[in-house]
Amino acid sequence: MSRTITLAVIPGDGIGPEVVTEAIKVLDAVAVGANLTVAKTTYHLGAARYLETGDVLSDEDLASISTNDAILLGAVGGAPGDSRIPAGIIERGLLLKLRFSLDQFVNLRPTRVFPGVVSPLAHPGDVDFIVVREGTEGPYVGNGGVLRQGTSAEIANELSINTAYGVERVVRYAFELAAKRDRKLLTLVHKTNVLVNAGSLWSRIVDAVAAEYPQVTVNYLHVDAATIFFVTNPSRFDVIVTDNLFGDILTDLAAAISGGIGLAASGNINPTNTFPSMFEPVHGSAPDIAGQQKADPTAAILSVALLLEHFGYTEAAAVVNAAVTEDLAARGASVRSTSQIGDAIVARLSS
Amino acid sequence: MSRTITLAVIPGDGIGPEVVTEAIKVLDAVAVGANLTVAKTTYHLGAARYLETGDVLSDEDLASISTNDAILLGAVGGAPGDSRIPAGIIERGLLLKLRFSLDQFVNLRPTRVFPGVVSPLAHPGDVDFIVVREGTEGPYVGNGGVLRQGTSAEIANELSINTAYGVERVVRYAFELAAKRDRKLLTLVHKTNVLVNAGSLWSRIVDAVAAEYPQVTVNYLHVDAATIFFVTNPSRFDVIVTDNLFGDILTDLAAAISGGIGLAASGNINPTNTFPSMFEPVHGSAPDIAGQQKADPTAAILSVALLLEHFGYTEAAAVVNAAVTEDLAARGASVRSTSQIGDAIVARLSS
Ligand SMILES: CC(C)[C@H](C(=O)O)[C@@H](O)C(=O)O
Ligand SMILES: CC(C)[C@H](C(=O)O)[C@@H](O)C(=O)O
Repeated sequence: MSRTITLAVIPGDGIGPEVVTEAIKVLDAVAVGANLTVAKTTYHLGAARYLETGDVLSDEDLASISTNDAILLGAVGGAPGDSRIPAGIIERGLLLKLRFSLDQFVNLRPTRVFPGVVSPLAHPGDVDFIVVREGTEGPYVGNGGVLRQGTSAEIANELSINTAYGVERVVRYAFELAAKRDRKLLTLVHKTNVLVNAGSLWSRIVDAVAAEYPQVTVNYLHVDAATIFFVTNPSRFDVIVTDNLFGDILTDLAAAISGGIGLAASGNINPTNTFPSMFEPVHGSAPDIAGQQKADPTAAILSVALLLEHFGYTEAAAVVNAAVTEDLAARGASVRSTSQIGDAIVARLSS
Repeated sequence: MSRTITLAVIPGDGIGPEVVTEAIKVLDAVAVGANLTVAKTTYHLGAARYLETGDVLSDEDLASISTNDAILLGAVGGAPGDSRIPAGIIERGLLLKLRFSLDQFVNLRPTRVFPGVVSPLAHPGDVDFIVVREGTEGPYVGNGGVLRQGTSAEIANELSINTAYGVERVVRYAFELAAKRDRKLLTLVHKTNVLVNAGSLWSRIVDAVAAEYPQVTVNYLHVDAATIFFVTNPSRFDVIVTDNLFGDILTDLAAAISGGIGLAASGNINPTNTFPSMFEPVHGSAPDIAGQQKADPTAAILSVALLLEHFGYTEAAAVVNAAVTEDLAARGASVRSTSQIGDAIVARLSS
């Protein structure tokens, strides 16, 4: 059965357009065999657009993006310290606005140490876990405020909002995922000994949902202790469920220990498909190497695999993952351009 | 000139009493040569005391502790998941209550990879940095709340409060410290692109104070990116200044990459000496190995060095650090009891 998926493509800034080009190359190549047509619309959004027009994300663009089945995003953000771009304006106004407006409450971030990839850890072991990061609550809600700004009496507040509604749905998703995996092990990461209100909510909901999944083993780690195990024994993790901010921190650390942010894929999932889900590499726009064909498109390509998985193209996703795995294993010390890596992965799709 | 320092000793729970015994052994041994008398008062506080009496920290105990010049704390906290101890009650009611009541706004946590110590990193490099963690603000203020608890409409909030008053004083401390060090490099870690209110306050204050310290090089990292560098290039750091929660997370990670939480010392400093400062190992009470002489007292002993430093006994502090460094270098795979390690370090003090 043939099907068309409409895809909003946001190449973004820096290396974003380069990695997205390769991701789409792979998506188009694998789509043929899957009897899938991907109808793309490109949206020029990000720091560059903001500097040109002053627009971050207009209501029209958001409405138009929302009509698509999915979104592929490269990376957004200007040069660090560019004083023309207020701190957070692109992140809050574009990236987080999409995640929140499109109710992408599951931020899915798998971590593997692929064969052939060098981890900075001396003994990484067999690392294969996935972080289920809550995507629409916590300290990311943007409900803070400031009083007496610029004076010696300034007070700047940040509010972390956590709801039973929001926590339960992401926790359920994490249990479903854990139940499908070999080890069936779920780790809640929070800071329940200090953030007692939010921590208590997360703990109680995990306990309650756990009763429905007797086959899943549940444990708990404080976020500080979790970072220790990420470097001393990352193979102990299977599925981690956590808050938006802790998930942000842990997934960068996960990317680092598994051999690089250049390999870390993510899906911002709206599991009910009320709105499009968004797939994006975890890395940033890396303006310092932009336009030089130096970026590794692997994370963007692995994000395409998550997209295929999301739409039920499990086999096509597996083909992409396998091609990436083979390519990584064969890499060695070779230096290839962004498009050479994309081409090499495409070439491996058919094998 | 002879001097007496009054010291409140809180051995606490689990391995706390064992490591404190060794720390005091070292302190007493080094005090002789420094012409220093340490007058100790022991306070039995922690999870065990709570289970016995229902008390966490009474006003009387707090008032009595406050009359001392300093505090030495082992570790507090009961067995994980002990349902008789509500989450956070010991942490919030004792440890954080001391830090906040005694206005210990500088939480000082040095990280070194000592010669002979095995880091989990393949190539740790020359690691020698210090985290200046804010100790009295941020998400630790305990100003959150909960609505409709236990219902499907529950909302649990956590508030992070950040003031110009609180940020400026810890930032100034960090600049002073950086100015005294060889590399004179200060890294602010925050999440300014998401936590825009608190982030803006921290950034502006760092920029303002930086103008007074032209000899200090300043840079900035988002907390997620900082975790990457902790594992890929920790030797890039010199002094890190950061918020209470980010500091909590980063210092456990720092302990891990430098070869273990058993070596991580900390000082909760009140630089104005209005109230006593508190010295404690970063590790927890580790109930699983308590009472078995298996705990490494090194972090507690290094915390004594921070105490000596705090009171201006720079030479005595250096003697303790040197003895620990020698002991670590000579350790190899030997298994020694807690007190054997303490004795060995004492024996090296005079050399
Ligand atoms: C760019 C930033 C807003 C974003 C986040 O904090 O979520 C990024 O770090 C990520 O992890 O996707
Ligand atoms: C026990 C806990 C409250 C404490 C903290 O979060 O500060 C600990 O993790 C630390 O780092 O000293």
